[in-house]
Amino acid sequence: MTALEQMGQRAKEASRALNSLQEKKNDGLLAIAKALRERMAEILAHNETDLQNGKANGMTDSLMDRLRLTPERITGMAHGVEQIAGMTDPVGEVLEGKRLPNGLRIEKVRVPLGVIGIIYEARPNVTADAAALCLKAGNTVILRGGKEAFHSNQCITTVMREAIESVGLPSDCIQLVQDTSRESARELMGLTAYLDVLIPRGGAGLIRSVVENSRVPVIQTGAGNCHVYVDAYADVDMAANIIFNAKTQRPSVCNAIETILVHKDIAERALPVIAAKLKEKNVELRGCEKTRAILPEAKPATEDDWATEYLDYILAVKVVDSIEEAMEHIARYSTGHSECIVTENYTNANRFTEQVDCAAVYVNASTRFTDGGAFGMGAEIGISTQKLHARGPMGLAQLTSTKFIVRGSGQIRA
Amino acid sequence: MTALEQMGQRAKEASRALNSLQEKKNDGLLAIAKALRERMAEILAHNETDLQNGKANGMTDSLMDRLRLTPERITGMAHGVEQIAGMTDPVGEVLEGKRLPNGLRIEKVRVPLGVIGIIYEARPNVTADAAALCLKAGNTVILRGGKEAFHSNQCITTVMREAIESVGLPSDCIQLVQDTSRESARELMGLTAYLDVLIPRGGAGLIRSVVENSRVPVIQTGAGNCHVYVDAYADVDMAANIIFNAKTQRPSVCNAIETILVHKDIAERALPVIAAKLKEKNVELRGCEKTRAILPEAKPATEDDWATEYLDYILAVKVVDSIEEAMEHIARYSTGHSECIVTENYTNANRFTEQVDCAAVYVNASTRFTDGGAFGMGAEIGISTQKLHARGPMGLAQLTSTKFIVRGSGQIRA
Repeated sequence: MTALEQMGQRAKEASRALNSLQEKKNDGLLAIAKALRERMAEILAHNETDLQNGKANGMTDSLMDRLRLTPERITGMAHGVEQIAGMTDPVGEVLEGKRLPNGLRIEKVRVPLGVIGIIYEARPNVTADAAALCLKAGNTVILRGGKEAFHSNQCITTVMREAIESVGLPSDCIQLVQDTSRESARELMGLTAYLDVLIPRGGAGLIRSVVENSRVPVIQTGAGNCHVYVDAYADVDMAANIIFNAKTQRPSVCNAIETILVHKDIAERALPVIAAKLKEKNVELRGCEKTRAILPEAKPATEDDWATEYLDYILAVKVVDSIEEAMEHIARYSTGHSECIVTENYTNANRFTEQVDCAAVYVNASTRFTDGGAFGMGAEIGISTQKLHARGPMGLAQLTSTKFIVRGSGQIRA
Repeated sequence: MTALEQMGQRAKEASRALNSLQEKKNDGLLAIAKALRERMAEILAHNETDLQNGKANGMTDSLMDRLRLTPERITGMAHGVEQIAGMTDPVGEVLEGKRLPNGLRIEKVRVPLGVIGIIYEARPNVTADAAALCLKAGNTVILRGGKEAFHSNQCITTVMREAIESVGLPSDCIQLVQDTSRESARELMGLTAYLDVLIPRGGAGLIRSVVENSRVPVIQTGAGNCHVYVDAYADVDMAANIIFNAKTQRPSVCNAIETILVHKDIAERALPVIAAKLKEKNVELRGCEKTRAILPEAKPATEDDWATEYLDYILAVKVVDSIEEAMEHIARYSTGHSECIVTENYTNANRFTEQVDCAAVYVNASTRFTDGGAFGMGAEIGISTQKLHARGPMGLAQLTSTKFIVRGSGQIRA
């Protein structure tokens, strides 16, 4: 047995034990939060080791910033865990139930998924956040973080394991893969005997690699090539505000927009207003020919621009002849994350919401709302862009499965 | 582009078109049922070709029986399609919704999955059944049946395509893969650009092959190594009746049982009653040593017996010291399908239902009830033994995804 298989076996055993210790989950979460605050100095010291290694290896400033923990960030992590403790327990919820004509009583009940694997990059805050969400939903977790954050992750994991053990939960509810090589990631993706699901959290490259290589079922999160379509019947100022917010409020995230599609009948009126607003943040525009006839300052857009998730202050702009053309463009280039129409036309609003195939479709609101917190679901583990199991922001309920419980009095099948 | 990629592209286009033709789905289903009845002679003639080929290739009698269509079976297929037409449409159901404090109105709505691939064996009735379920749930389907049934499948598919076209639906809502080689199955498992999900229907070998090789998300159905645990507090006659029913009513199906676990305190009293009942159908018993001390006629069971899905008149028998030992045995050997405890003890019933991890867990009733029809869900496409997306009998709702629709009045994120 490899080290990872042993870890898988321990996670599975802890998962069975956790099944009859559900009432201790919140004690465990509160103990984690307390320990994160109390052992802050220790965590910061280990993080310092990672930061120094990063510096020595020429890590970029933005990666260093993701890696860095501060007292405020650790307090934020602890606070996040406390919030998760305060959320309603999804396990045990009876989703439906009935009495069958033969007297059988049947219930569909929420149960934990079992063992969840999380593969992520150099963000140590994910360590506490993901572990807490998995535990709250009754699952055990195998964490596999990036090698750049190994000392931080190791320390946070130790703190969490000791905390849950102190309240009587198995420490193996939370485990960290010790080997941060590519091989360990690959082995994790094949651990079908122990893992019920694998969730990658990170950039597009990580997610693609997991989706393509994993034999364990994956929940795909993240990639967002999102659009705003400005209909012929749009309120121009509203369109400009929504586009400005969806592009510039936080360009690096998946629910930010990358392309706008503008109906030809409104383009001459709307494009200058939109461009003026985007100029406040120096957004670079890349337009089709019709766009450039109206906005000569836009660079010419190529085929690549329609397919690119810039995650930056760049926006592609296309003038379309009809709502059909807009929806066809979206069907072709969208990653199925968040799509928006700005319109005052009742029929067009309905057509767009019905026909555009994505996790979240908006009428007259910024795509930036696609997020567990904004949707009122509490903490989220990611935003699923797949259609099976979970679609859109994934909260605690999406970290569970279901089970039918059937109670009888000797019924047999005729 | 390969033939299969072209098929995928047509399925995707048909899926988009179907989105705005939802109100014609039932017309299409009723047209299919009518056409199956009217063109029965044509279907039987093509089936005869398959049967003659099968005979020439030395096909076994039981496979020939699965392959054979009769007027009654075709009428049954048509009737099944009419029943599906009569079921409630899952698409468009609003699952939840609320108004957020910022005035956004958010709804979670059921939508079709998109394009579904079905890989199955030489059962031509699956062709109509699977296509009808997929269509009712708003999906288009790519069918890939076994080569032994190719002429039958081809004829049934043509009948269905012409029928749905006659009511204004795209014929490409239903397509049959023309190449029945292993390569075509393998290519289908990699068609991630077009297929939203792949569902294998058939024996354990087919399912394993799809689960191991598919890069398209798979819903795993079927395998059932199911148990009945006879608790120390069981009603012995009830236990014998449930075991007899769960083993012998239809031994070849996944919800039949393969092993019974009997508490040591009741074994001497219960085993002779159970054995006498099973003798009516000449069920072969394979027991542990303690079992054989009570039932000397039982053959000795080996480690393999605990892991085998016999699908035959054979039953493994083990005497256990406690409910814990029974649950540990189940955790080790169960395929997570259906598990049963027979007991009059309240606490043991609750422990078993809470701690045994499977799709359907029973107290005092036969495992044979795990089925869409028996659970009151109507037609089913299979019984999922996985934990993601769907678990247990899969009806129309399990052939759908969801979408968030967010309606605003210009909201932007602060």
